[in-house]
Amino acid sequence: MPMLSDPSLKYLPYPSVPFPEGYIRQWPTKRTTTSPVWLSTDLRDGNQALVNPMSNTTKLELFRLLVKIGFKQIEVAYPAAGENEFQFVRELITNNEVPDDVAIQIITPARPDLITKSIASLAGVKHGIIHLYNAVSPVFREVVFRNTKEQTVDLTLNAVRLVKKLTEEETARSGARFTLNYCLETFSQTEPEFAVELGNRVLAEWGKASPDDKVYFNLAATVECAPSNHYADMVEYFHNNINQRDSVLLSIHPHNDRGTGVAATELALLAGGDRVEGCLLGNGERTGNVDLITLALNLYSQGVSPGLDFSNLPEIVQVVCRCNESAVPVRYPYAGTLVFSAFAGTHQDAIKKGLDAQAARWEKVDKTGEGKKYWAMPYIPIDPKDIGYGYENLIRVSSQSGKAGTAYVIKQTLQLDLPRRMQVSFYGIVQNECEKSGKEMSTALITNAFKQQYCLSSKPIGRLHLQSYSLIPLSPSSEPSSLDSAETDGTATPPEQGRDLVRFEGQISVDGRTRRILGDGKGVQLALLDALRNDLELEINVGEVVSHSIEGAKTATYIEVQTPGSSASKSGAGSIWGVGLSSDPVTSQCRAIISGLNGLVGDRRFPRPKMVFSPRRDQSAQRSESWLRDFTFRAGHSVVRTPEHERSELIAASPI
Amino acid sequence: MPMLSDPSLKYLPYPSVPFPEGYIRQWPTKRTTTSPVWLSTDLRDGNQALVNPMSNTTKLELFRLLVKIGFKQIEVAYPAAGENEFQFVRELITNNEVPDDVAIQIITPARPDLITKSIASLAGVKHGIIHLYNAVSPVFREVVFRNTKEQTVDLTLNAVRLVKKLTEEETARSGARFTLNYCLETFSQTEPEFAVELGNRVLAEWGKASPDDKVYFNLAATVECAPSNHYADMVEYFHNNINQRDSVLLSIHPHNDRGTGVAATELALLAGGDRVEGCLLGNGERTGNVDLITLALNLYSQGVSPGLDFSNLPEIVQVVCRCNESAVPVRYPYAGTLVFSAFAGTHQDAIKKGLDAQAARWEKVDKTGEGKKYWAMPYIPIDPKDIGYGYENLIRVSSQSGKAGTAYVIKQTLQLDLPRRMQVSFYGIVQNECEKSGKEMSTALITNAFKQQYCLSSKPIGRLHLQSYSLIPLSPSSEPSSLDSAETDGTATPPEQGRDLVRFEGQISVDGRTRRILGDGKGVQLALLDALRNDLELEINVGEVVSHSIEGAKTATYIEVQTPGSSASKSGAGSIWGVGLSSDPVTSQCRAIISGLNGLVGDRRFPRPKMVFSPRRDQSAQRSESWLRDFTFRAGHSVVRTPEHERSELIAASPI
Repeated sequence: MPMLSDPSLKYLPYPSVPFPEGYIRQWPTKRTTTSPVWLSTDLRDGNQALVNPMSNTTKLELFRLLVKIGFKQIEVAYPAAGENEFQFVRELITNNEVPDDVAIQIITPARPDLITKSIASLAGVKHGIIHLYNAVSPVFREVVFRNTKEQTVDLTLNAVRLVKKLTEEETARSGARFTLNYCLETFSQTEPEFAVELGNRVLAEWGKASPDDKVYFNLAATVECAPSNHYADMVEYFHNNINQRDSVLLSIHPHNDRGTGVAATELALLAGGDRVEGCLLGNGERTGNVDLITLALNLYSQGVSPGLDFSNLPEIVQVVCRCNESAVPVRYPYAGTLVFSAFAGTHQDAIKKGLDAQAARWEKVDKTGEGKKYWAMPYIPIDPKDIGYGYENLIRVSSQSGKAGTAYVIKQTLQLDLPRRMQVSFYGIVQNECEKSGKEMSTALITNAFKQQYCLSSKPIGRLHLQSYSLIPLSPSSEPSSLDSAETDGTATPPEQGRDLVRFEGQISVDGRTRRILGDGKGVQLALLDALRNDLELEINVGEVVSHSIEGAKTATYIEVQTPGSSASKSGAGSIWGVGLSSDPVTSQCRAIISGLNGLVGDRRFPRPKMVFSPRRDQSAQRSESWLRDFTFRAGHSVVRTPEHERSELIAASPI
Repeated sequence: MPMLSDPSLKYLPYPSVPFPEGYIRQWPTKRTTTSPVWLSTDLRDGNQALVNPMSNTTKLELFRLLVKIGFKQIEVAYPAAGENEFQFVRELITNNEVPDDVAIQIITPARPDLITKSIASLAGVKHGIIHLYNAVSPVFREVVFRNTKEQTVDLTLNAVRLVKKLTEEETARSGARFTLNYCLETFSQTEPEFAVELGNRVLAEWGKASPDDKVYFNLAATVECAPSNHYADMVEYFHNNINQRDSVLLSIHPHNDRGTGVAATELALLAGGDRVEGCLLGNGERTGNVDLITLALNLYSQGVSPGLDFSNLPEIVQVVCRCNESAVPVRYPYAGTLVFSAFAGTHQDAIKKGLDAQAARWEKVDKTGEGKKYWAMPYIPIDPKDIGYGYENLIRVSSQSGKAGTAYVIKQTLQLDLPRRMQVSFYGIVQNECEKSGKEMSTALITNAFKQQYCLSSKPIGRLHLQSYSLIPLSPSSEPSSLDSAETDGTATPPEQGRDLVRFEGQISVDGRTRRILGDGKGVQLALLDALRNDLELEINVGEVVSHSIEGAKTATYIEVQTPGSSASKSGAGSIWGVGLSSDPVTSQCRAIISGLNGLVGDRRFPRPKMVFSPRRDQSAQRSESWLRDFTFRAGHSVVRTPEHERSELIAASPI
């Protein structure tokens, strides 16, 4: 039996709500500026929908969580349904589990024997809410109960009368406070006029509703059968026509069969709803009751306090899922594992910029004391930290991510802020890896790919590896101030070309064999390039150079390396970069060049060493032995480092 | 950092839409009576949100499924994002995968190089839709692009100009048809006046929109940041103020950050939306794009054909989940495994009655040809069979279920319609089992418990087991007609007390040993009771007796048995019942009594046999050998059966 090409033969559209001619709905013009009263029905409506209903021990654990979150009204059981249910209410009361400001609610069908048993369960309660229900829509009246409207009213009023009698007796005995919560089950499918009539008859029968002691009406969308605006219309009609409106509380009880339970609730609150009934994470029959977490955080993200505390949402989710033997879907609002993640490159780029801009804005507020530290973040409507999540998953990288995603990961894990053209280059490497493997590049994998590509490891990787070096001023007049100052204040100003002539004298491992290189040039960079040309016959040019300081008084330098004649791509695609890290800016520069060379040399063969551990055209041989142990500036002029030592530090500091 | 007690310090409420003074919103008064145009963006927006994006092979599989479901517009790729993406578009076109009536859409940012590459991917297409996008809300203009409004307009118009030029060139080459789909990314967070201005400038730049060749505007709720009614207001404002409204298509592109994406779509369609963009099962960044299945079936269940075929939803769900490496949540509208299930007893009772009433109503329509076979079922808003699900999960039983649930299961699996008081009794047995094990009683488990309790098995279970029997009229004048007629027309009229005197001569196994019993009485029942009293010293009374015919011309009889002096409970709680099944009504009655006895005797000790396989006070011994093979009425007077044979049939026929 396939879907009908004309479904109107089988399905009737929802009836319109009989507003007066020319009536203008009020709810579409309103906005919610205060929190509703919340009723959790996790222990009742939620529980009865579970494949494996909770034990009373588990119910108690969840009850305590609900109290801790801040619920002041909690529906706890269907006492007439079974001994366990009855017993649970008794234990809550006799063990003093219910705080003074929390009302517990129990449900009972409108049948005398069940009402009597249900109210008996509440003996000794401080504030009990009697949830009396019967289904009142045409299909229930006609098919399930075979009652006329008047029989339905009679049945209801008889039940109300009994509830009144029994609760007054208990009040006389114990001083307990009771509230009548009459539920028009299937309200949203009931003739609006009949719903109002029934409500008014109940009010009259109860006879003692007041603004301080309201009668609650549960306007249940037992099954969600129409668009959310229809439910709002239904509630507004009831709101407009029920008697003694100031002595009545309208309670919204939506389900989610059309996937619009949250919206229906929000619109119904605009239409006059005072209270919301639902479950954490939307547990409940079929598609579930409405989710109270989503509703509360929707309010919160509009600047309205819900009066419920979800500061530690991850832990709350864990408890609820354990109690309900359920799992939270990955795309579930606020609580899903993917909802604070962006995979698309453009999204990642915007989030990265948004975080930076917001940090600057908030800092300014802190400094000046002016303005608000408000949240304005592309793609992320609520600060994950407000509800116990971090920023670590904000950007996740897949083959659909752009350069910004990978760059963000590197910034988060290694504190390295890659230049834009280098982002493009590195992203090409990551993308290639993603497309080859078809898998997500996790943070760890991206970080590892970065270290591998740029030879950042505690063990030498790559064919070339700078072990140590010294710089010797060749012009007696030159000042070593640039090196000293860089070391002292931690700012990143690596020596540029055009400086005084220096000699670079280095020990470099090539394919595992240590050899010395030596070159002169104006500034470190040219001297190193000269040494590489002299001893390895490597003719390379340096393109873009960027450096910045990072935590721990270190400097990161990024250098683009090219073979002569190759033209730099404007976007950076395919360009080759090196990365150097050091507490000394000059060393970071040298390392960056060697790091870049590793990406450039491929399987190129190098000439045999012209010299091994012996000076060629200088007088520094006498210092060769000390290269392995000297970690300080030599005479204020030269730098000697064992790069491995610092790399270990870097790796250890990285939050991988 | 906990949730703020005053979140207004951090979160700004959504701004109101600047309708003119006294303006009355139109959308709340409308209803949707036709289907929107659908655009699936599973292969683009959905794909880019996946932890593991699809391979092109997988994308092709999903593309074919989308075509089969009936989508006429499908967004297929982000061709400028990577070689795979570009290649996918090429392959669709060159391999003729795109039916003539299907338009494929590609997305491109508003950057010249990317536009050029993207449009190049469409060479040879029949109808291509160019999805050109840039984010236009304040936070994006200020933080991400650092553009003024005018710079944003310029950037957009330059892009539109280029799209126009390149598509016109391609049309000149190949005759391809192109549609401009301009996406105001973050539309719902953009100043409404600016959105309209931008739209009108785009329309003017394009310069050739007509009712036959519309410009599409994607009014994206890129992030859902406000209640669903706000999005409807935004769309209605744009709808009211955009130029050339009849030459413009408004496309709704909601996300689900507040859990209200479906509702926002439905309201936005009331407000002027013409097309909906989304994904199957709501895949997409963060909380996902809006789910097209839910939207389509929401329409369908209101009698409006969506023009999409989800007749075999289970299979579609399977394919989508495989392609997306995702799972569908158990409470997901229409597609979740629990959404056509009821666990609560009252729900089950109503569904049971609803199914019966509807079957009767539909039968009447079939017979009279009058009226509609419309769907009106408590708790189940759509016929599961329309979308490929059965009724077998409608009622599931847990410790929270009532008697109706278990009774429904027994009716479904064994065709047995238990009397109300017996439902209560059997439910007590099931509930006890549930509470003991804390687990759901599955259909199989309930059915097994029923067979165990009432000794319905192909192998004898219970202490007492009726092997065969014969009935001998003791009054020569009595007519055997009641037995004959029952056998012939299959109606269920077991002989009652007060009939003519008969002799019951039976072979019964007691604790594994066969013994004979013999008794006289007015009617079978009293004769059997007499035999039990004579030979087993069992004094029992019969309470309520109910029987009905079942498929296969069989009769089911339910008999309540009591020990003398015990009073029957009114509700049936704790009463003891037996069940007998047979193609012969009399046999079903005898079996029911023995079945009930098994629940009554406990570990009672029986007297030693007074006789074994020998006549005591009758002349029927000569027939004892034939008892094991004679399956027919004897001489029209007596009944002999081997119950095992028929029980095997029953068991085999049960859909367990």
